[in-house]
Amino acid sequence: MTITITAFERSPDGGKGLARDTRVRWALEEVGQPYEVRLVSFLAMKEPAHLALHPFGQIPTYEEGDLALFETGSIVFHIAERHAGLLPHDANARARAITWMFSALNTVEPPILELATTRLLESNKSWYPERLPLVEDRVRCRLNQLSARLGNADWLDGAFSAGDLMMVSVLLRLKSSGILNEFPNLAAYVARGEARAAYKRAFAAQLAVNAGRPPTG
Amino acid sequence: MTITITAFERSPDGGKGLARDTRVRWALEEVGQPYEVRLVSFLAMKEPAHLALHPFGQIPTYEEGDLALFETGSIVFHIAERHAGLLPHDANARARAITWMFSALNTVEPPILELATTRLLESNKSWYPERLPLVEDRVRCRLNQLSARLGNADWLDGAFSAGDLMMVSVLLRLKSSGILNEFPNLAAYVARGEARAAYKRAFAAQLAVNAGRPPTG
Repeated sequence: MTITITAFERSPDGGKGLARDTRVRWALEEVGQPYEVRLVSFLAMKEPAHLALHPFGQIPTYEEGDLALFETGSIVFHIAERHAGLLPHDANARARAITWMFSALNTVEPPILELATTRLLESNKSWYPERLPLVEDRVRCRLNQLSARLGNADWLDGAFSAGDLMMVSVLLRLKSSGILNEFPNLAAYVARGEARAAYKRAFAAQLAVNAGRPPTG
Repeated sequence: MTITITAFERSPDGGKGLARDTRVRWALEEVGQPYEVRLVSFLAMKEPAHLALHPFGQIPTYEEGDLALFETGSIVFHIAERHAGLLPHDANARARAITWMFSALNTVEPPILELATTRLLESNKSWYPERLPLVEDRVRCRLNQLSARLGNADWLDGAFSAGDLMMVSVLLRLKSSGILNEFPNLAAYVARGEARAAYKRAFAAQLAVNAGRPPTG
């Protein structure tokens, strides 16, 4: 059955790989599953046809036969559950990898999202210069804890897993802020993720869309 | 094997059920699994023994034999995967229920968390009166979309699932704000969750801790 995902017709980041379809593309590349992409405009994302697929009017979505999913975490988990390569076989290690997926999305990403929202929506507000450092410190607090846990390990729990895929994807949003480089082991961890062949293919595919050229994969 | 979770020795909410152990208690009650609770002080949460269990120094954690998990979403999913009652048998319906779990935690909860953070950490700031309505509107934007999807249905995708457990738990954080009542179908949805016998047992158990009495269950 063909897998079809949705992505921005024009990504707000201009192809830096921060739109969430990159996470899904990466997962599909890790497990070697081909996929098709339907591009959606900002206007179309808020129309009934897309809202039927994604109640919050966002991308990505995932369609495969009569199954339709939204929410990146759920899509990546679905892929990881059905194809080898993203979750360990050992039951306890598998549960820990899933833990890191949720941790990336519900503990580490929220302050990073808050920082992004602050930059995007409040940079013209009088309080911006005073508030921005407070929000950055909330991010640092989480990164300190994550850095302490990772230590000198390559990945969060032994072999690379969907948990690492999600955590690296979340941390990538910090690259332009400079905060990531305050934590050398986390910067190296993200670089290890970016160096994976599957990530490179996913990144190139989203970049090709945003450069106005068809994906070359 | 005994299941042991951790909870606050003294919950910041004084027993309103908003601490995240309530979500795990609720899941365990839905599937009829007994559990033990180890109470942790704020001081102990930041010490090495607890950080070994939970790298971000929070509660709840979950221990069962040689398995140790953190992150509420992951713990509830682990319970739902191993015991009947929280995930449908049909593969597509199961994937959609998992989608709603991730959606609750990664799409609906972040603006609600931002509102809580704003109230907790910024109420003494000069910008608070002007900024608070902006943050509240970010919450309303998500609730509008969720309300439109839920419509007149009892639950998000047919029968009650772990997705509803998580979404109701996330929305419960809004009760004191008054925002939830702007969306009557969501308020009724949360009330349906609270009316479940399993939720009532979970709520009573956490209240008993915070009232300084042993759980009566």
